[in-house]
Amino acid sequence: MATTEMAIDTYCHEMAEAAKEASRVLPTLPGEARNRALSHFSRLLREEAPSVMEANQKDLEAAPSFGLTGAQVDRLRLTPQRLGSMADAVDEIIMLADPVGRVIDSSVRPNGLNVMKVRVPLGVVFFIYESRPNVTADAAALCLKSGNAVILRGGKEARHSNIAVAGLIQKALAAEGLPNSAVQMVGITDREAVGEFLRLNDFIDVAIPRGGAALIRRVADEATMPVIKHFQGICHVYVDASADKDKAVEIVENSKCHRPGVCNAAETLLVHEHAAGNLLPAIGERLLARGVELRGCPRTCELIAAATPATEEDFDTEYLELILSVRVVPDIQAAMDHIAKHGSGHTETIVTEKLAAAQQFTTAVDSSAVFVNASTRFNDGGQFGLGAEIGISTDKFHARGPCGLNELTSYKYVAFGNGQIRT
Amino acid sequence: MATTEMAIDTYCHEMAEAAKEASRVLPTLPGEARNRALSHFSRLLREEAPSVMEANQKDLEAAPSFGLTGAQVDRLRLTPQRLGSMADAVDEIIMLADPVGRVIDSSVRPNGLNVMKVRVPLGVVFFIYESRPNVTADAAALCLKSGNAVILRGGKEARHSNIAVAGLIQKALAAEGLPNSAVQMVGITDREAVGEFLRLNDFIDVAIPRGGAALIRRVADEATMPVIKHFQGICHVYVDASADKDKAVEIVENSKCHRPGVCNAAETLLVHEHAAGNLLPAIGERLLARGVELRGCPRTCELIAAATPATEEDFDTEYLELILSVRVVPDIQAAMDHIAKHGSGHTETIVTEKLAAAQQFTTAVDSSAVFVNASTRFNDGGQFGLGAEIGISTDKFHARGPCGLNELTSYKYVAFGNGQIRT
Repeated sequence: MATTEMAIDTYCHEMAEAAKEASRVLPTLPGEARNRALSHFSRLLREEAPSVMEANQKDLEAAPSFGLTGAQVDRLRLTPQRLGSMADAVDEIIMLADPVGRVIDSSVRPNGLNVMKVRVPLGVVFFIYESRPNVTADAAALCLKSGNAVILRGGKEARHSNIAVAGLIQKALAAEGLPNSAVQMVGITDREAVGEFLRLNDFIDVAIPRGGAALIRRVADEATMPVIKHFQGICHVYVDASADKDKAVEIVENSKCHRPGVCNAAETLLVHEHAAGNLLPAIGERLLARGVELRGCPRTCELIAAATPATEEDFDTEYLELILSVRVVPDIQAAMDHIAKHGSGHTETIVTEKLAAAQQFTTAVDSSAVFVNASTRFNDGGQFGLGAEIGISTDKFHARGPCGLNELTSYKYVAFGNGQIRT
Repeated sequence: MATTEMAIDTYCHEMAEAAKEASRVLPTLPGEARNRALSHFSRLLREEAPSVMEANQKDLEAAPSFGLTGAQVDRLRLTPQRLGSMADAVDEIIMLADPVGRVIDSSVRPNGLNVMKVRVPLGVVFFIYESRPNVTADAAALCLKSGNAVILRGGKEARHSNIAVAGLIQKALAAEGLPNSAVQMVGITDREAVGEFLRLNDFIDVAIPRGGAALIRRVADEATMPVIKHFQGICHVYVDASADKDKAVEIVENSKCHRPGVCNAAETLLVHEHAAGNLLPAIGERLLARGVELRGCPRTCELIAAATPATEEDFDTEYLELILSVRVVPDIQAAMDHIAKHGSGHTETIVTEKLAAAQQFTTAVDSSAVFVNASTRFNDGGQFGLGAEIGISTDKFHARGPCGLNELTSYKYVAFGNGQIRT
């Protein structure tokens, strides 16, 4: 492995250059060729499970030296069943429609020029992640399916597992005659390597970080190429004066409790003051029964005895656990102002029976997904029918919300003429 | 005007904050309100032409101190006719379909959730340009029509004219009840102001530079928000072995000579060696008659006596004048390799009668527009039927090729349910 800075430079540069070369070949291959490689990879994940688990064992043994908690160690562990699920996920991606070469718009111009807007891969993706080894398979499959070359840089805690999984992809690519630099795993864990890749905008078209806020901030700051960011989700449920009580209770409970550790879980509840007296005690009762800690404004604390006073900081916090901040607001405008000030543009929900309120909220609230009478938990590629996602973008540029295959593409104009010139 | 660095900071910050506020209001107004303001602006451009021309006179008088050439001074000059054309361009933008709120995709999920993908404005655009005052009107109209707030920063040579035009927009916004910070002109010409705006990514969603390579590079380097770049166009015409001779001559002439100073003009001609003997003399004759200087490879110089030897640097140069570099290549793959190495991803054309060659070229060449048997000059928003454009993006991220109203938008997901929760 590289040990001097010079060697890291060279290592990254060669990898990026090879990825760029592969990215020129991939869009010229039929989608069937990319699918065959993915299919082969999926088969290897099942057939060669023992070798991956052997590598995984090394990561599990090293886990205490990284200070991983018991829950984190459990998430790191690979079993034949988990490898089977990884293979299933790859199989699902194979079944998705091929985005490459799809004509997404077209027109015949008055001069007879036939103009088509055609989907093309972005080129080379640099994917940096901290999560479990299954992300390696997902990300590689999504990038390859969409015709992109990808450089994967996983967390050091899963290094051996990731290298083993990437080895299977390499084997599949070679067996099916695809360029083996279409999917590459960064083998060194030096932190400088990330910085080096982020400088190589001649070769890398987009950087996608997935992990904690510090990682995303670092990538956003250092990257010289575009970044698809998956920042925090400070998601709100606003219960309007006109809300149906049962729907409100169910939606608030589901948004907070269904999976509190994920980005589309609700962190703040806003309640119209006309609904508060009737609704907040019922919501409080349901949430307290689920073990949720409530931090509320003064009016909330009057209505729910178990609530403790919220600070301003609470309303800017992505808890990612069973804590909910609660504020009673005078009207829908105050709710939207609160969201504009404290929200992260991820996901918001209004619970209302009034059409005008639903229209006002969905028009004015500027978040990647805005729901009416549904849980915040639906902001998800699978739930929207987009297939697997590589992340949920909190940017407004290029891709917003769940990023699946289409969001890993760009387009070009292709126009067929028969000798047209401009006069 | 601001004179200390502190004052510039404050000036830019207040402007950007006001733009952000306006950007929250604009998407909630009906498109008719934005059109009314644009209509009012267009009327003022005609009615108040004398006041704009008075301001323009100051720029014309200062022009020698900026070292402008005669041609540049002429381009800077505003006349009632030119102001009428500016107003016409605004009228055309009014007539374009409103992108804001348009549902661009939708599905009803198995659980009944009705998911829509809805176009929304990007937010706040920072537009930096060096060109003539008509760009002020165009850019303001495109941004406002697409529901974005915009901060305009024009060249110092046109400062008085730009401020006068922006004054008319302000007047129109006020008269029609729109936030007057929806369109703002940077009144100070301090170079630091640009750097300051490029730091304000809390308020500005995208920076769009239009001008020389140095400006674009500076903005790309300094910007902390996404940038839509309009880099150079090193555009190629490749004449295949199977090309029709007449089409080839016409297309090469038009691509080079129709308007040599623009980005979609051809800079390099590549000719298949089997076609060279028959075609190059005819092409050379036509181009030499149009005053084009030819810089060719050895084979080109054999076939066209007037051609001078090209250097490798020639093939990396955007001439923007009546010069064409010419290379004879052994096959289509060599042509595509040359384009991948020397091109800027802007516009390429193949002249061919063979379907397989057309398919190979359009699939493998990675440029914003790839033409078959048509002039490179067609890579243009108007020619593609997209309406007026704010630039031609040479990026692959977010927007590629001509950037019109749609490219100034993002999207969000809006989903209507009736109490759906995830289980």
